[in-house]
Amino acid sequence: MSGLVIYRTPIAPEWIDYNGHVRDAYYALITSYAVDRLMDHLGIDARYREQTTCTLYTVEMHTHYLREIGARDTVEARVRILGADGKRLHAALELFCDGKPDAAASCEVMLLHIRQNPTPRTAPFPEKIAAAIAELRRMTAAMTAAGPGSRRIELGNR
Amino acid sequence: MSGLVIYRTPIAPEWIDYNGHVRDAYYALITSYAVDRLMDHLGIDARYREQTTCTLYTVEMHTHYLREIGARDTVEARVRILGADGKRLHAALELFCDGKPDAAASCEVMLLHIRQNPTPRTAPFPEKIAAAIAELRRMTAAMTAAGPGSRRIELGNR
Repeated sequence: MSGLVIYRTPIAPEWIDYNGHVRDAYYALITSYAVDRLMDHLGIDARYREQTTCTLYTVEMHTHYLREIGARDTVEARVRILGADGKRLHAALELFCDGKPDAAASCEVMLLHIRQNPTPRTAPFPEKIAAAIAELRRMTAAMTAAGPGSRRIELGNR
Repeated sequence: MSGLVIYRTPIAPEWIDYNGHVRDAYYALITSYAVDRLMDHLGIDARYREQTTCTLYTVEMHTHYLREIGARDTVEARVRILGADGKRLHAALELFCDGKPDAAASCEVMLLHIRQNPTPRTAPFPEKIAAAIAELRRMTAAMTAAGPGSRRIELGNR
């Protein structure tokens, strides 16, 4: 397994572009929804956000588009925790279409824990959330990447 | 100027997430629409795509989220051509909110010229499009980046 299954979705018709497949930005939307589920899994859920005004901001996202996703596909997102510190979380998300063994996309995100009130500022993860991150990291550390990881984009790469 | 202005858009209400600002994936959608305008600019427009079945596929996208974009912002996308070869185009897109001097996001994309029929395969740029790419590259080569470029995502980076 290449990661913990965290989210599944069919394809909305409006995600298909003039090329006849899912537009690049909607791969990012699926990844973004998968990060929402990851937040729920770690306890950074709606209740926590409301009570603390703390949340995660995405500071970087790097996606490799590996295969086309079509209108009739169902996509599964799998997550691995690549690293974390007191206020940041580095995660890999990979998208798979049901019935197809190869990843359709591999993505890395850097997420930052922010207290929004009174003005957005970085804040340390509470102990309970840090423990949940560490636990998921242990669980997914040995899982294998199904696609390329983040790197500098350049013509020399292929 | 940090790039050729290629696209402008107000913010759609559904782009705002529970954090009260534009969701990460919708920065990517604005970038994606800006790439559509870039394609028009280079002659890879709807007519060309219909006549040749050739188009651009995104193979990588790396976004740095620098500032929040709010519901009342109007966003301008500026483009620079960072490189090109016979069938690939490496571009930088930066997003700016009207009235704010600093970039809200910096993004790099690697785009691949594909002939879709009978099955998707890479294809060389026709001479006219290669010339348009070269011209835009000359025009934007000396322009300055307003945000970080693509790099490997890692905790050590800040």
